[in-house]
Amino acid sequence: MELVNKILNGDIRSIAHAISLVEDNQQEKEKLIDLLYPHCGNALIIGITGPPGSGKSTLVDKLIIQERKNGKKVAVIAIDPSSPFSGGAILGDRIRMQKHATEHGVFIRSMASRGHLGGISGATGNAIKVLDAAKFDVIFVETMGVGQTEIEIVEITDVVLLVLVPGLGDEIQALKAGVMEIGNIFVINKKDLDGAQKLKTEVEYVLNINNSGADKSKSVAMTSAKLNEGIEELLMALEEYVDKLSSNGGLQQKRKKRIEKEIQKIIIEKVYEKVNYYLKLDQFISEWADDIFYGKYGPYTLVNDKIKLFLKEHSLL
Amino acid sequence: MELVNKILNGDIRSIAHAISLVEDNQQEKEKLIDLLYPHCGNALIIGITGPPGSGKSTLVDKLIIQERKNGKKVAVIAIDPSSPFSGGAILGDRIRMQKHATEHGVFIRSMASRGHLGGISGATGNAIKVLDAAKFDVIFVETMGVGQTEIEIVEITDVVLLVLVPGLGDEIQALKAGVMEIGNIFVINKKDLDGAQKLKTEVEYVLNINNSGADKSKSVAMTSAKLNEGIEELLMALEEYVDKLSSNGGLQQKRKKRIEKEIQKIIIEKVYEKVNYYLKLDQFISEWADDIFYGKYGPYTLVNDKIKLFLKEHSLL
Repeated sequence: MELVNKILNGDIRSIAHAISLVEDNQQEKEKLIDLLYPHCGNALIIGITGPPGSGKSTLVDKLIIQERKNGKKVAVIAIDPSSPFSGGAILGDRIRMQKHATEHGVFIRSMASRGHLGGISGATGNAIKVLDAAKFDVIFVETMGVGQTEIEIVEITDVVLLVLVPGLGDEIQALKAGVMEIGNIFVINKKDLDGAQKLKTEVEYVLNINNSGADKSKSVAMTSAKLNEGIEELLMALEEYVDKLSSNGGLQQKRKKRIEKEIQKIIIEKVYEKVNYYLKLDQFISEWADDIFYGKYGPYTLVNDKIKLFLKEHSLL
Repeated sequence: MELVNKILNGDIRSIAHAISLVEDNQQEKEKLIDLLYPHCGNALIIGITGPPGSGKSTLVDKLIIQERKNGKKVAVIAIDPSSPFSGGAILGDRIRMQKHATEHGVFIRSMASRGHLGGISGATGNAIKVLDAAKFDVIFVETMGVGQTEIEIVEITDVVLLVLVPGLGDEIQALKAGVMEIGNIFVINKKDLDGAQKLKTEVEYVLNINNSGADKSKSVAMTSAKLNEGIEELLMALEEYVDKLSSNGGLQQKRKKRIEKEIQKIIIEKVYEKVNYYLKLDQFISEWADDIFYGKYGPYTLVNDKIKLFLKEHSLL
């Protein structure tokens, strides 16, 4: 495949084209991804998440600059919510980030979060493969806001930076409510603001960093993305985290788990397609919905019956 | 089923128990839902969404009070993000709303948004069925924040109130970015704030209310939930919207479409279960992930081969 060679050689137009291919879920996608797969595994995939207003985009901005100084090829996938709110701010951020897009060794792409069955993971996971094969050293995946997306980012990245800022409400409650699993490195951004040190102490308290039995791999970094402070230190903390994860087999395990999830997603996609076809769903579903609407069957009874029939017909029962 | 009778009689403990059943995805769930289904279709299901800080919970609070005055039985399902951010505020809101929970004719329940395959829709859709069968007249489904959840709320409700407030950033950009499809009635809350009238004008402009060809069913209401102003007017706008939707067949169509989505979701669930079983996924998936990790196959090639084998074996190919 000509396209594959071009991607492996880092041709930007081919990379952009390939990402569009995997987004559109075309047939070609499967062949492409499978051909790229053996060339993947070299990039470090870094998720960046946090509440709106925490300065994620500015942080990514400064991380790009620093990583370029370190001689690294950097890609950014920015997940835009398909949801309306805060759309304006996102557009602004994207435009700002685009200044890097013309630089050599930097690739930036926005992707919509609205997905078919799998949320962000499907298309974004495949876009990451394209960039990984194209020999980007670091791939940042940045999400906006609150929701399902933040859970999924853990599945598709190697390490997650959770960006917090003082004064955005009761962050510690939030932390208790479930952030522990999501972040690997907690970044207190806008560290010059009042309350930053207090927030750090609280996060460390919640992380129980000094206690035995706690997850000692998690750490807290302080930055001011706007003032370009703490960026190198953050990257060092990141490197340390990844080195440790790498040496104890955790990174490999994480990546294998990710492949398992991918397999599951592909199976669901494929099988649903087949069943759709065999049950002639396009033709009958509105009839079945009518039957349920008028109380002829319950939805589970109907589906169970259809599937039973289908399985029996094909000696699966 | 004893439980069904109790639900139909509006027994609160049975309703709460039934919702737990459908949340836990137990076998019993299917029987229960199918038995309740013929008793559904009387409740009006109202989605309430909007950015954090727009005062959704206070609005629901006042809507409950007003609907109780109107003699209606009211239920609220509050979708909590499984994501960490803003967790604190939510907890506070919930506690505040719980004051209604002891009142006769009011039922309030929080549900997590983190879902198995179907995001919020699965469990929430079934919880709505329970409440509908229990003869609640109005069921509010309130979501928090930004993300996939907001898209799904459209699928599971009859009408969506989109709550906006002045001063939360560039709302109109947001509107352009996709809000048009989500909201049926746009509520400008905190109408006493500066910029509320301007926001209303802008929303109306975007909605193109006065132009031909625009969706004339959408309208804009102004409230101050905190000051309890505009609540009756909002309910009247809501009633008008629903009456129109009802009389032109739109409501029925919407509900049938919803059943189609439910059928699809159930099929995916069921079929995945079967395939899982036949492919012995639990046993082999880690082996397959290894093969892919070490570059033996690409993920699509592997899954396609396995499914082909499976289909051939059962004379489906």
